[in-house]
Amino acid sequence: MSELSVPTKKKLVIVSGRAHPQLATDVAAELKTHVSGTDLRTFANGEIYARYDDSVRGADVFVVQSHTAPINEWVMETLIMIDALKRASAKRITVVAPFYPYARQDKKGRGREPISARLMADLFKTAGADRIMSVDLHAAQIQGFFDGPVDHLFAMPVLLEHFRAQLDPATLTVVSPDMGRVRVADIWSEKLGAPLAIIHKRRDPKVHNQVTVHEIVGEVSGRVCLLVDDMIDTGRTIVKAAEALVANGAIGVVVAATHAVFSDPACEILQSEFISAVVVTDTLPVPEDKRFEKLTILPIAPLLASAIHEVFEEGSVTSMFDGAA
Amino acid sequence: MSELSVPTKKKLVIVSGRAHPQLATDVAAELKTHVSGTDLRTFANGEIYARYDDSVRGADVFVVQSHTAPINEWVMETLIMIDALKRASAKRITVVAPFYPYARQDKKGRGREPISARLMADLFKTAGADRIMSVDLHAAQIQGFFDGPVDHLFAMPVLLEHFRAQLDPATLTVVSPDMGRVRVADIWSEKLGAPLAIIHKRRDPKVHNQVTVHEIVGEVSGRVCLLVDDMIDTGRTIVKAAEALVANGAIGVVVAATHAVFSDPACEILQSEFISAVVVTDTLPVPEDKRFEKLTILPIAPLLASAIHEVFEEGSVTSMFDGAA
Amino acid sequence: MSELSVPTKKKLVIVSGRAHPQLATDVAAELKTHVSGTDLRTFANGEIYARYDDSVRGADVFVVQSHTAPINEWVMETLIMIDALKRASAKRITVVAPFYPYARQDKKGRGREPISARLMADLFKTAGADRIMSVDLHAAQIQGFFDGPVDHLFAMPVLLEHFRAQLDPATLTVVSPDMGRVRVADIWSEKLGAPLAIIHKRRDPKVHNQVTVHEIVGEVSGRVCLLVDDMIDTGRTIVKAAEALVANGAIGVVVAATHAVFSDPACEILQSEFISAVVVTDTLPVPEDKRFEKLTILPIAPLLASAIHEVFEEGSVTSMFDGAA
Amino acid sequence: MSELSVPTKKKLVIVSGRAHPQLATDVAAELKTHVSGTDLRTFANGEIYARYDDSVRGADVFVVQSHTAPINEWVMETLIMIDALKRASAKRITVVAPFYPYARQDKKGRGREPISARLMADLFKTAGADRIMSVDLHAAQIQGFFDGPVDHLFAMPVLLEHFRAQLDPATLTVVSPDMGRVRVADIWSEKLGAPLAIIHKRRDPKVHNQVTVHEIVGEVSGRVCLLVDDMIDTGRTIVKAAEALVANGAIGVVVAATHAVFSDPACEILQSEFISAVVVTDTLPVPEDKRFEKLTILPIAPLLASAIHEVFEEGSVTSMFDGAA
Amino acid sequence: MSELSVPTKKKLVIVSGRAHPQLATDVAAELKTHVSGTDLRTFANGEIYARYDDSVRGADVFVVQSHTAPINEWVMETLIMIDALKRASAKRITVVAPFYPYARQDKKGRGREPISARLMADLFKTAGADRIMSVDLHAAQIQGFFDGPVDHLFAMPVLLEHFRAQLDPATLTVVSPDMGRVRVADIWSEKLGAPLAIIHKRRDPKVHNQVTVHEIVGEVSGRVCLLVDDMIDTGRTIVKAAEALVANGAIGVVVAATHAVFSDPACEILQSEFISAVVVTDTLPVPEDKRFEKLTILPIAPLLASAIHEVFEEGSVTSMFDGAA
Amino acid sequence: MSELSVPTKKKLVIVSGRAHPQLATDVAAELKTHVSGTDLRTFANGEIYARYDDSVRGADVFVVQSHTAPINEWVMETLIMIDALKRASAKRITVVAPFYPYARQDKKGRGREPISARLMADLFKTAGADRIMSVDLHAAQIQGFFDGPVDHLFAMPVLLEHFRAQLDPATLTVVSPDMGRVRVADIWSEKLGAPLAIIHKRRDPKVHNQVTVHEIVGEVSGRVCLLVDDMIDTGRTIVKAAEALVANGAIGVVVAATHAVFSDPACEILQSEFISAVVVTDTLPVPEDKRFEKLTILPIAPLLASAIHEVFEEGSVTSMFDGAA
Repeated sequence: MSELSVPTKKKLVIVSGRAHPQLATDVAAELKTHVSGTDLRTFANGEIYARYDDSVRGADVFVVQSHTAPINEWVMETLIMIDALKRASAKRITVVAPFYPYARQDKKGRGREPISARLMADLFKTAGADRIMSVDLHAAQIQGFFDGPVDHLFAMPVLLEHFRAQLDPATLTVVSPDMGRVRVADIWSEKLGAPLAIIHKRRDPKVHNQVTVHEIVGEVSGRVCLLVDDMIDTGRTIVKAAEALVANGAIGVVVAATHAVFSDPACEILQSEFISAVVVTDTLPVPEDKRFEKLTILPIAPLLASAIHEVFEEGSVTSMFDGAA
Repeated sequence: MSELSVPTKKKLVIVSGRAHPQLATDVAAELKTHVSGTDLRTFANGEIYARYDDSVRGADVFVVQSHTAPINEWVMETLIMIDALKRASAKRITVVAPFYPYARQDKKGRGREPISARLMADLFKTAGADRIMSVDLHAAQIQGFFDGPVDHLFAMPVLLEHFRAQLDPATLTVVSPDMGRVRVADIWSEKLGAPLAIIHKRRDPKVHNQVTVHEIVGEVSGRVCLLVDDMIDTGRTIVKAAEALVANGAIGVVVAATHAVFSDPACEILQSEFISAVVVTDTLPVPEDKRFEKLTILPIAPLLASAIHEVFEEGSVTSMFDGAA
Repeated sequence: MSELSVPTKKKLVIVSGRAHPQLATDVAAELKTHVSGTDLRTFANGEIYARYDDSVRGADVFVVQSHTAPINEWVMETLIMIDALKRASAKRITVVAPFYPYARQDKKGRGREPISARLMADLFKTAGADRIMSVDLHAAQIQGFFDGPVDHLFAMPVLLEHFRAQLDPATLTVVSPDMGRVRVADIWSEKLGAPLAIIHKRRDPKVHNQVTVHEIVGEVSGRVCLLVDDMIDTGRTIVKAAEALVANGAIGVVVAATHAVFSDPACEILQSEFISAVVVTDTLPVPEDKRFEKLTILPIAPLLASAIHEVFEEGSVTSMFDGAA
Repeated sequence: MSELSVPTKKKLVIVSGRAHPQLATDVAAELKTHVSGTDLRTFANGEIYARYDDSVRGADVFVVQSHTAPINEWVMETLIMIDALKRASAKRITVVAPFYPYARQDKKGRGREPISARLMADLFKTAGADRIMSVDLHAAQIQGFFDGPVDHLFAMPVLLEHFRAQLDPATLTVVSPDMGRVRVADIWSEKLGAPLAIIHKRRDPKVHNQVTVHEIVGEVSGRVCLLVDDMIDTGRTIVKAAEALVANGAIGVVVAATHAVFSDPACEILQSEFISAVVVTDTLPVPEDKRFEKLTILPIAPLLASAIHEVFEEGSVTSMFDGAA
Repeated sequence: MSELSVPTKKKLVIVSGRAHPQLATDVAAELKTHVSGTDLRTFANGEIYARYDDSVRGADVFVVQSHTAPINEWVMETLIMIDALKRASAKRITVVAPFYPYARQDKKGRGREPISARLMADLFKTAGADRIMSVDLHAAQIQGFFDGPVDHLFAMPVLLEHFRAQLDPATLTVVSPDMGRVRVADIWSEKLGAPLAIIHKRRDPKVHNQVTVHEIVGEVSGRVCLLVDDMIDTGRTIVKAAEALVANGAIGVVVAATHAVFSDPACEILQSEFISAVVVTDTLPVPEDKRFEKLTILPIAPLLASAIHEVFEEGSVTSMFDGAA
Repeated sequence: MSELSVPTKKKLVIVSGRAHPQLATDVAAELKTHVSGTDLRTFANGEIYARYDDSVRGADVFVVQSHTAPINEWVMETLIMIDALKRASAKRITVVAPFYPYARQDKKGRGREPISARLMADLFKTAGADRIMSVDLHAAQIQGFFDGPVDHLFAMPVLLEHFRAQLDPATLTVVSPDMGRVRVADIWSEKLGAPLAIIHKRRDPKVHNQVTVHEIVGEVSGRVCLLVDDMIDTGRTIVKAAEALVANGAIGVVVAATHAVFSDPACEILQSEFISAVVVTDTLPVPEDKRFEKLTILPIAPLLASAIHEVFEEGSVTSMFDGAA
């Protein structure tokens, strides 16, 4: 006999970039493990360095990174972390990117533009990623940009659970801030048993050069409006929508979004009198100085941890969303 | 001197699959050339055979194929044609697929589904395609599925030119048949100087198990409605939309779509009393027995020929759409 | 400790395309399991849809598909099934294609032809197949077309076992229907202990434009002839060979082939008076209306099941054929 | 205007490995150019070094290498030459390998064997080859091993022209030395207007453990036999075949083959009394000490040069063989 | 005839990232063209957007980007620019990165580190770069990291020309700041006809825990020392070397380096009394507030422009350095 | 339930090329297993054949090959062995190449040269290698040439252990034979607690055309010198260095190197009177006729076996060198 034969084991390793270390810590805690030590540094000229404290040989590694600003720093850090894992013989590398970078550049709107969302998928693949896990992709087609499995998670159950305790369907209307998000709002409407309204921003074709009109479709007068979107970037769209809703008789506007990008001046203008509450998850870090009174941040770690558990144990991620809410 | 040095020329070759040979003939005629001879056959057990009559060595070849039913036959024929071109030393191979196959399977709606639109892009690439040219992709993100240049053409100028002569903006309303197509309808509305209406199909959340309601947003009573969509497959959506428009007072419904998929029972039900006219392009072949009196088919060949000309001459395809309409 | 460590298990999953579901059922039964549920549908315009009922995450999946007519449908279905498995995180995907599609297009006979057998290998790879299992490849070189392991199985033991009980070597001659199959016939001859004869189809070089002559090399007069081939497509070659054998004094002609392609008019002409019996395997489905009295169909499922067992258990497929017959 | 625009030229560069420099010189002479200078050296420990004397930037380069013994040296030299060309920005690299290395290892005869002919194709591709040109591949399927265009040339016209002047069809029989080469011998038979005979080597199934019998099929008694094969390696098969032909009454045996591999003891035993003449081409070098009186070596350079000309000028290589002989 | 055949032209296009626009402008001016307009923007959340003003279809495009701090921003911008070019059908894309990013991470010094210099090469390739042009790579092996041609240029002729007019070989000593750079210093020494000295930084093995000693090998007392290095990052190494040289009797220290990384506190400490002059090139931008009196910046644009000219015209970049200085 | 589920095991298989079978035997013995049987042969024309005696399906295979002369034979044998493993469904293939082939061709010294060390990495990858294990790479950057994990082992602990027992630090000086190896010599110096000296070979810039001068930096007079290098090829550099050391007063010269390439005339000239002892490892085979009295060969098998053990058991190779010496 020329062989040594032994039973195999597999081990789960969680590592984290520097964008949002608390998230990785929370995920690891949910999984009853902890984040594996990593030496991450930025050199004088801005180059990033990564080294893992412990062996990752043969491990099933999940790289948790939250692509907040400065987003290019964190994308590059993710890539460098993956490269080091690949060269250190990790068995499988999953990028846990709750907020997918460059998701809004998912097509060429005009000639000679990049499709940066596809580029990101290719960069992750090239560095050595085997799979991607993300939450509420801006366009579901981004799953098709990656040449491998993508676990696409939905934050809706997390948000719904919060609102069920807070809002009364009898006086509630779910509102889509624009035409592109109606499908998602429709699901909210059904889950909460509340009617739907839509805001249609458009130029009046009968008047030359006129500014955008916010047309509201559906009943909002005398009702509490729940404005739902996938992300809040500068917040301008949301605030104008809230203003239009109030102008049309809404008695309150609550905003729900998965990703709190919160680029300036989001934190300032979201404190508008037209908005009663803003509820987001922590797929992106919200530093102390960006938090405000009306803001509620729900933890996304339980969702990520459940999915990582299913992936590691080779269960079903799909089943996590069966009968959700 | 160890070298022979000669000036280079490039030659344009158009070849065609068997799905829609007239289209290739029309494209070639526009380009003042003709379709290069190809021996295409199906063997007794269904396997397809391809051979080119003339040398394609060093040529800039455009493979025109229209992915109509039986769609898998034509996809496979396209792949086999590309393989033969690659092995025959064609310099560059462009798949001219005016109707992109499997475009509607562009994401995983649920777990354990394929993303067949991405698969098609990979199959074309693997066979040897360098570039793709297509018309009115169902989702613009499909451009990002192909690892190379995609020339995404728009049939709107072709259709608009037809309608400008036919319809009076003063009495016209542009209608989107569902929420997902509003953006395109919005552009039509602006180009024609006519207002927009939207049909929102949804379940009434206040009534249990109720069937879909066709809510109409915008003014349609007493107006001629132009229903615009990217494709007509079985026609059921369009006919129901037309019925709803008439029920809401529309005095006429004209349907415009780029791709005449026309699966059964499209041709029968499109002859509905609620529809005045149906206008499509010939990106897909419409056989004689599927044509009906109210149907107008506009030629797409001039558009494809212009784009092929720009690609071959290394001009700008983007500029074809600048200032369109 | 930053790691969760657990022992690993592996699971076997059999899924089936729609071309020959009975075969997959038989294979699964041999393996004491059953075929995993799959939702396979064809949409109105001919596009195929696939979805797995249960999680395949981490599974060792065998996709059983028999590439019968309409062959392009089934090839495309196989590719789409593989894509869905890859994106659903199957650990390893083996295409079980007992009849390899396009196997006869394995070289360029002339310039500007495709090599479709290589193209098929590349398409399977691109979709996500890790390995291929096939039976009696038309040319053994096709193994080299796939960039990965190919389990090449031989149906000969299955067929031999049948004939041992039926035929008497003392009066038997093994016949190769043409020059290209002599090597295989030679092995049959040795295994059965019966002499070999060969049919050489050729034009008589001394007569201009003469039709093909069937020259028979070896003793056939007064003997039972066993005509062996890898496949029967239209059956014309086999029937003419049988006719020539009888004309040369054969007292019976038995036909053995692995793959019952049975394109028209095979089923009709194989009932020729010159043929006593036709024995095939069910690598391809033979529908009821293509079966005839003289036809015997041997089950290939035990062979496939044994090989799948060895592949799953990491035993030796090679050893299955050691000392065969 | 931001562009500099100039007409393009292309230049042809011929470089040569050290296996058979005369061949490259002859090819270049046919093309009215000369072989580009290359510094090729072997270091003390056997490592090979390559450097081109002149710029190959943008050139259409043909690497002529004849894979004779020591064959692994020359394969590695070819790979290193390709790598240097790729890194020196050659525009297109064609490996001119008149004798394809490892062509006989084109399939797995048994489990756990390599398919080295496929491996060679992949190695050439990896190093940077865009295309391959070869003569009389041992199996035509090898074309399918390379992921790109293969120009497969035939030496038959070169050999036929020689024999037309030498042999009288009235007394000639074309002989295939074994079953595997009958198809090629059949074409010779037709081209020369002479009948065909076949040698079938096999064990007599009725006698246990008996050695191989050389059965001759067809008329050879009193005739001049032209034994045709693709290559002569050790010569043993050919010499035994000649002996069998003479034993069966042949009045002369002439041997024709494309590739003079001439491994020991070929040169010695080919001088057998049973063989009147041996005619080969110089796809492989035949050193002075391996030449013998009955040997005729026909130049292959004109064929290669014609094909290179067509490839460079983007004409048709296929047409070179239309109406051949 | 089915073909349109036209002579081909090629056009040169220069585009620039935002890191060092002056460099691209200078390069374009040398080439008598100008930088092609590009719309480059950073969105609120830090994502970068690129779009080309004019068609680049079929063009030979050179993307000039200088990877200064914030280096990850500029790397990502380069990648996005390449992606847009690839999708816009540029014929060939050359990244002109005079300072190669992450060049110092060219190996694993310890386990579980990345090899970021290789990663960068793979990222450029994945985005769509065909070739790379760079100046004075930190390690020449980085050329081997890219799977394609790399034009490796040397700034030495530019620097030498400057010093020839400034320094007298009779009193000059060329100094290598550490063991790793001796080979380059040796070439300087030869080119200038001046002797060589070396600084060896090491721990004294006979004293425990002692700090690094600067041993100077060669004659420096009473001489002007020319310290040569590939880059100046924080400047600490160089300043300590200068101090050691002066301590050993040098009457002046002049510093020459290709890349002025100038991370803090370089600009401050380089104004040290031990240093007479610092001469660099502008491969990296040196903003006004980082310039100081003793600093001379030589233009690298003529070198880049010459190389681009040779690449575009398919001349020889190698010959640019034959007989240099 | 449609699944069969079983626990997984993994098995270790060691196979060996023919270059240095003793090494594989020694490695296997250390691992308490033996070398798996392989049929390796060279055919008459020099082509190599490989076949494994036993199933390697699912195995973790280590291919031990020592790339000695004839190096191209052994590289090709390695590639063919890998191909056969890949096609036989080995789970993971590690090339154990203690002496990396073509390591000195790791960059382009001039234009139009290959980078053969990168080419080797790509060839191994293409054939099917998943990982590489090597000892003392000539340049550490070679790790970055392979697209996957490289276990880079160091022979220093093996050599150090030998010398600790033999040499007295009080009278010892560690010597680097040229500038390029100083860093390694520095580590030796520190590990042994002995001072460092360096030999600088250079042309005297003040004398035209003068031959190379061996300048010695550091104290060697009256001391035993330990000359350390990564490999000894022809031995000329080492012998000249030893001569220079003695000329400068050294009382003994001991040579230590990892790789005994020993090309002619190494074995002859290493017996020089200036050299007291030569100590190498057996990464390369040293045949009996190349051994000489002063030569000591230390076994490398324990080091390789430890690393293979860690790789197979998914432990840490890095930790093998923590606190080494």
